[in-house]
Amino acid sequence: MDRIAVIDMGSNSWRLVVFGYELGTSWWSLTDEIREAVRVAAGMGEERTLKPEPLDRAIHTAAVFASFCEASGIEAVEPVATSAIREAENRDELLDAIRDRTGLEVRVLGKEEEARLGYIAIANSTTLDDGFGIDLGGGSVEVVRLEGRELAEADSLPLGSVRVSEKYLPDEKASGKAQKALRAHATEVLEELGWWGDEGRLVGIGGTIRNLAAAAGKRMDLPDLDVQGFRLTRDALGDLIEELASKPASKRGGVPGIKPDRGDVILGGALVLDAAMEVGGFDELEVSEAGLREGIFFERLLDDKPEPLFDDVRTESVRNLAHRFRGDEEHVEHVAKLSLAMFDMAGEADLHPYGREERELLWAACMLHDIGTAIDYDDHHHHSHYLILNAGLPGFTPRELVLVGLIARYHRKGDPDASELGDLARGDDEERLALLCGLIRLAEQLERSRDQAIASVEVTLEGDEVAIETSANGTGADTSVAIWSARRSADLLAEAVRRPVEVREPD
Amino acid sequence: MDRIAVIDMGSNSWRLVVFGYELGTSWWSLTDEIREAVRVAAGMGEERTLKPEPLDRAIHTAAVFASFCEASGIEAVEPVATSAIREAENRDELLDAIRDRTGLEVRVLGKEEEARLGYIAIANSTTLDDGFGIDLGGGSVEVVRLEGRELAEADSLPLGSVRVSEKYLPDEKASGKAQKALRAHATEVLEELGWWGDEGRLVGIGGTIRNLAAAAGKRMDLPDLDVQGFRLTRDALGDLIEELASKPASKRGGVPGIKPDRGDVILGGALVLDAAMEVGGFDELEVSEAGLREGIFFERLLDDKPEPLFDDVRTESVRNLAHRFRGDEEHVEHVAKLSLAMFDMAGEADLHPYGREERELLWAACMLHDIGTAIDYDDHHHHSHYLILNAGLPGFTPRELVLVGLIARYHRKGDPDASELGDLARGDDEERLALLCGLIRLAEQLERSRDQAIASVEVTLEGDEVAIETSANGTGADTSVAIWSARRSADLLAEAVRRPVEVREPD
Repeated sequence: MDRIAVIDMGSNSWRLVVFGYELGTSWWSLTDEIREAVRVAAGMGEERTLKPEPLDRAIHTAAVFASFCEASGIEAVEPVATSAIREAENRDELLDAIRDRTGLEVRVLGKEEEARLGYIAIANSTTLDDGFGIDLGGGSVEVVRLEGRELAEADSLPLGSVRVSEKYLPDEKASGKAQKALRAHATEVLEELGWWGDEGRLVGIGGTIRNLAAAAGKRMDLPDLDVQGFRLTRDALGDLIEELASKPASKRGGVPGIKPDRGDVILGGALVLDAAMEVGGFDELEVSEAGLREGIFFERLLDDKPEPLFDDVRTESVRNLAHRFRGDEEHVEHVAKLSLAMFDMAGEADLHPYGREERELLWAACMLHDIGTAIDYDDHHHHSHYLILNAGLPGFTPRELVLVGLIARYHRKGDPDASELGDLARGDDEERLALLCGLIRLAEQLERSRDQAIASVEVTLEGDEVAIETSANGTGADTSVAIWSARRSADLLAEAVRRPVEVREPD
Repeated sequence: MDRIAVIDMGSNSWRLVVFGYELGTSWWSLTDEIREAVRVAAGMGEERTLKPEPLDRAIHTAAVFASFCEASGIEAVEPVATSAIREAENRDELLDAIRDRTGLEVRVLGKEEEARLGYIAIANSTTLDDGFGIDLGGGSVEVVRLEGRELAEADSLPLGSVRVSEKYLPDEKASGKAQKALRAHATEVLEELGWWGDEGRLVGIGGTIRNLAAAAGKRMDLPDLDVQGFRLTRDALGDLIEELASKPASKRGGVPGIKPDRGDVILGGALVLDAAMEVGGFDELEVSEAGLREGIFFERLLDDKPEPLFDDVRTESVRNLAHRFRGDEEHVEHVAKLSLAMFDMAGEADLHPYGREERELLWAACMLHDIGTAIDYDDHHHHSHYLILNAGLPGFTPRELVLVGLIARYHRKGDPDASELGDLARGDDEERLALLCGLIRLAEQLERSRDQAIASVEVTLEGDEVAIETSANGTGADTSVAIWSARRSADLLAEAVRRPVEVREPD
């Protein structure tokens, strides 16, 4: 496993993150993280000068981070600086001191470069194809437009949450007038872009947006998940703004979901975001937890490609997670193959009304159904469910993630229960889950001996009965375990398609 | 990884379990399991003859299990038969048919052999040293006595739950008279042993006992754990017997914790167990989830030892689990070393009143604190906690397991919360956890750079202040990350010892 450390020298906090990856593959994971509230921009004021105390803190933090990399034997270190340092009159003083003390050569990101890294993070952690991205930072806001997954427009606007809060909302109480002025300013800056919005989806990244999504999530009945893929509607954002504005600045950090140390700037950030959604005509924003740091890492991980983009984000997420708990790859691929074949043929026979979305969820669940055996064989269906929900799958919405988790949860036994979906549920989820769990359960048993003895299946409707015709993998294959196991696991599928299901031995 | 399949041909259910292990080490895990309710003993009656239908089911099941082993490429297969088959007049008919059909050579365990395998399971999954063991099966009950972890006595008694239930409790209603007769019979058989009980602990194994423990657990406020290490008191057993006896046989399987298909024999088993506890003078029974199948597996895993026993069950459990999520071994060993050194020196300085028990828990938590990173670096302390509780640690009580999980949970941040212990809590657990979490948290940060730069620590009391003196690993070691990190993580320890804690740089 190779490792790379990215040091993100932001306006407020500095963060060292370590990514592990396997060269020549796309397997990766975050393996370490240190955060320090350096507040390098503190007291910069209009003259844009880094002050002595923040400079000291910054140099000391750089030294500690460098020592950490040295001690851990991480040779690839990428220190990058963003708007606060980029704009500081005396930035060379800091960069020289860091170079002298640690040998680190800090890369000061230009505005377009910073926006481009945010784009890479978005394109590799969501399914955004044509649409827009916004990275709401403390100093600046980066905005991008994607066309066919390529970067079509990029800019950096001086609308960061710290910046607008200091200027427009300096008091404990946010007056209606001050909020209006902030909004008018943000609207004007955004409108000047000339290309912002009007069609396509919007993805948001950065700590402010993560916090707003978490706060909106707390007001709903949701499973306990992180905010990757969360849909923040403009209505929900409006409600949050109302709540935040009704409190004094010092109490805003107490709103569930908002980190205490963001309380003083969260309202400013929320107002900028609301203006951005209004100007662009967006009803909702999709949240990604990836950001600048992942952008830098993905550039390196994917540098053998023409563009640093995964071919398909959802497929990569599933394969990356499956890989982390290496199991019997041939087995899970075969369970997926049998499940999807039955899904397709059952659909053609009008046994269910589901399509591409459910097919993808079923595939993902098949690939991941056994990862829980890494914890314990007993109850491994429960453990797979825990791992899926907690490790997460970028590219999937929270609803999809929970469904994948539930299909894995019920791949062996139990009556599928959709209640965990809470506010993410749709009316027909019980039926949807019964079918998908019924299919994976039957496929798992048809592959019970893990040797692909049942090579393929056909689903046919014969009168009122659903027949599962099986074919053996060659004449010598012993299919007795598969048939024996499958016959006692067809009940759930039978219930889902409201017909008896008969599993037939190969000819 | 090598694999061995054990096929346990019991009176009621047959089970195929597959164990994976690494030759030359003691790493192992259960990797697969198939259960089939063969009910081979059905209708045997007094003439002890296996009937045609059960024989057919048995032969067919043996064939499926053999096919499974063949398909999975498992060459080491150990099929064993216990009392029902051992006692059957026509057992050769079954064994010959199985041999012809599958090539499997079934080992019919003698009474002492069966008891000995239970002993091996007990000695390798608990800390029982001098004491007694009971394996309550469907046909027979195996009893053993241990002396210095060696097998001192062993016997098999015709008191299995199915057997006594059929004879004494054949009706829906269990009359007081019938219960009394069952009890008197069991008492008589047990008293005849001449060596049963009077001093030492008692460990119980087998499905009946697991179910009784689960049912007793459901009546308490406990975390959701399996029953490994659970203490079933005779009082709790008495309450359960009262509840079970008050219901008709067909309703007893509905008592929470009791599996439905055991409902008809659970009361009989409970009465035998109660008699065994009374005759032996035992106030409580410790439950182990290991049994005959593990006994057979351990015999093989540990066959390079004079006796098939782990040197130390708790140590092996911890190391086996740590190994499953291979992390940075030098790092966790060093965190353990620093934590224990501080624990010992703080104890000598009267900064805490804790001793050997807490020291062992601290060690276990240190060894396991990072296993959650296998799931996700973010929140890995939560994931370590989940893994510890769900993978389990044979040799530890549920209370100890929860404490180890909580120490790992709070090794990075948060205020330790003992409320999860429920009825397992003791009055001073908040203080206990604060100290143990305070120590691991400081040790983790002293080893933040994972390079053992801080080689050792000394704890001294200077006036009202606790000084942590550190020594660097040689003159070239960069201890800046360690000191920087440790200084911001000493609060919890300071709170636990009610004194300021100062972390000093090496000279």
